[in-house]
Amino acid sequence: MSELIEKCSAAKAIKNKLAVAPSTEKDRALTEIANALINNSAYILKENSKDIDNAILANMPIGMIDRLKLTEERIRAMADGVRDIIKLNDPVGEVTGITERPNGLKIGKKRVPIGVIGIIYESRPNVTVDAACLCLKSSNAVILRGGKEAINSNIALVEVMRKALLLSRIPQDSIQILNDTSRETATEFMKQNEYLDLLIPRGGAGLIKSVVQNATVPVIETGTGNCHIFVDETADVDMACEIIINAKTQRTSVCNACESLLIHENIAEKILPRLNKELTAKNVMIKACEQARKLMNDAVIATEEDYGTEYLDLIISVKVVADIDEAIEHINKYNTGHSEAIITESYKNSEKFLNEVDAACVYVNASTRFTDGFEFGFGAEIGISTQKLHARGPMGLNELTSYKYIIYGNGQVRG
Amino acid sequence: MSELIEKCSAAKAIKNKLAVAPSTEKDRALTEIANALINNSAYILKENSKDIDNAILANMPIGMIDRLKLTEERIRAMADGVRDIIKLNDPVGEVTGITERPNGLKIGKKRVPIGVIGIIYESRPNVTVDAACLCLKSSNAVILRGGKEAINSNIALVEVMRKALLLSRIPQDSIQILNDTSRETATEFMKQNEYLDLLIPRGGAGLIKSVVQNATVPVIETGTGNCHIFVDETADVDMACEIIINAKTQRTSVCNACESLLIHENIAEKILPRLNKELTAKNVMIKACEQARKLMNDAVIATEEDYGTEYLDLIISVKVVADIDEAIEHINKYNTGHSEAIITESYKNSEKFLNEVDAACVYVNASTRFTDGFEFGFGAEIGISTQKLHARGPMGLNELTSYKYIIYGNGQVRG
Repeated sequence: MSELIEKCSAAKAIKNKLAVAPSTEKDRALTEIANALINNSAYILKENSKDIDNAILANMPIGMIDRLKLTEERIRAMADGVRDIIKLNDPVGEVTGITERPNGLKIGKKRVPIGVIGIIYESRPNVTVDAACLCLKSSNAVILRGGKEAINSNIALVEVMRKALLLSRIPQDSIQILNDTSRETATEFMKQNEYLDLLIPRGGAGLIKSVVQNATVPVIETGTGNCHIFVDETADVDMACEIIINAKTQRTSVCNACESLLIHENIAEKILPRLNKELTAKNVMIKACEQARKLMNDAVIATEEDYGTEYLDLIISVKVVADIDEAIEHINKYNTGHSEAIITESYKNSEKFLNEVDAACVYVNASTRFTDGFEFGFGAEIGISTQKLHARGPMGLNELTSYKYIIYGNGQVRG
Repeated sequence: MSELIEKCSAAKAIKNKLAVAPSTEKDRALTEIANALINNSAYILKENSKDIDNAILANMPIGMIDRLKLTEERIRAMADGVRDIIKLNDPVGEVTGITERPNGLKIGKKRVPIGVIGIIYESRPNVTVDAACLCLKSSNAVILRGGKEAINSNIALVEVMRKALLLSRIPQDSIQILNDTSRETATEFMKQNEYLDLLIPRGGAGLIKSVVQNATVPVIETGTGNCHIFVDETADVDMACEIIINAKTQRTSVCNACESLLIHENIAEKILPRLNKELTAKNVMIKACEQARKLMNDAVIATEEDYGTEYLDLIISVKVVADIDEAIEHINKYNTGHSEAIITESYKNSEKFLNEVDAACVYVNASTRFTDGFEFGFGAEIGISTQKLHARGPMGLNELTSYKYIIYGNGQVRG
């Protein structure tokens, strides 16, 4: 039996036991994991250094090496993250809305885990612990498939977590990782409908596209964000500039950063020269439409392709629009279903924007950077869904659950 | 441009308009549709007769021809179904749980349509009207792809519905059907991620499997039901027999019919001879394990394959089990995630069964035949989901919606 099928079978074998594990047992297991991460940090760092050495040999860019690198402090942060998950409410088991039908059947909806979840992700090893513990807290068995760049770190982290599970009553196969990081095995993994209930890809657009194209298992798409800010004619210019600078520059490599500005033509003269100055001072490269460029000295010309690009970098596209309708139409054409914002003092336009823009998170007068499970008050997130099925926007513990109907009868038959 | 891409583009072009259509307009459109079905019944019947002629020429089994056949009465029933949908609450637009974050952001969850839904189904033409009107009521654009056996009827029904939409402000392209019923086009249809937000297959196991295997668009699996009834040792024998006869024989071709019985060994002697008589009297063929067969004169031997078969016919498998644990294990191995029932007077076992059986609908002391949108009080259903993502069990109007987060700020930026 291949490693893949062996691990898939092992997860399926324990999923029903895990589904009914009491909260106290799950929290005990998570406490053991947090402690074990700290107690085994020397081992984890040793394994991580192998990945770092390989990365240097492979001439990996410095930014990527930094994301791969673990330190005592980063391991402590992981353990703290696990302790934060312990504090969250257990989502499983809640029964809502029991109603009695005319025939006396009582029908309720009970929150249950999804079952076995596959996570396909790229190089950051902290995802390994984060994803495993969120799945555990929500009674889902997880099979991790991380990037080959982090494989030594990931295997070490999973080994430490699995050993910690032995100190609890949670089955050890609740957390597993594929040692085989080949592309072929990943593709096979995406087709294990017999074993997997859900697949969540976490990573760049290429990874997500590959999963969507190849998977037969249900998938939740996460993460790509071509996020817009529309500055309406009534906008407070100070507020608009502050939000734009924040959304573009506070952190550029994240999916909720702003990539494109739409400016109402009646406010263009007032705001664009100022934005040109402020963005340039922050080293942002500006790609603007003809009309915007006349007011932005440092801008280069934007192409059609720019409007569809998630830069994840110090680059922004700018387009002047005639009115809110043109702005909404543009956004609904180019956005990736992530986060969109309007800056306006018009009540009517704020409501119109909230109603008509089709995205997971639609903002009035705030930075798109708030699309995040922690900022939304979920306490944690497994990713940000950009599809409409099952979950949309930041996904916390509740979004890692399904439900079943439980029906109490006393002999009812159908007539 | 192919018919497929043309229709997909047309649906995408109007989906945002449909998303914000007022309830009154949608209900007006549905009223026009109900009237138009009645007023154009002669035309619909004429087109249907072409399908019936073709079916007879192709030697289609009589049961299938009956499902294909329309009559004045069946068209009236379709129109009544549309009027029932009008009476349901519009699910779209509801905002729940606006909470204020410490930074003053107000975050709420707004119910929105899914967008463009593809429905792939088999021969019954009533699905055409039913699915189209449920999608319309929930502000989803629909692209129908029915079976080639019903193509003349389906095209006529869609033509009548689209003409009726002209009398309302609902865009005509809210309802479309693919004239091309080739398998190649169906496969292409399943990969239109750019246009389709969801694909729902309605039909037999073969159709559903093909969609799951080929689709890159998110899918909700519906309908296959290998449903079990477990008779616990404390069961009321009269109640058990009544429920079993109902679940097996009241209608055999449906997904919520019972296909397999599990009998606690301590009650086998008391119930199996009686069930042998009662099932045989209803012309049910019994396939039993060795132990059960000793108590059921008319039974043939069950194979491993029987336990995994959805007969959709007057056949049932029977197996004696040592206890509830064996019953639950058997069910969790063979069931298709549809409907499962226990007959018991034990409080402890009723709770254990509800907790541990992994299926969309889990019953105590009632027939599995109740798994149905109407019986659950949803007023209608688009299908019964057997997967865990997004929706599980009967899917009504709410299950045809997604949500978006709406966020009210006053200048917040992320620190």
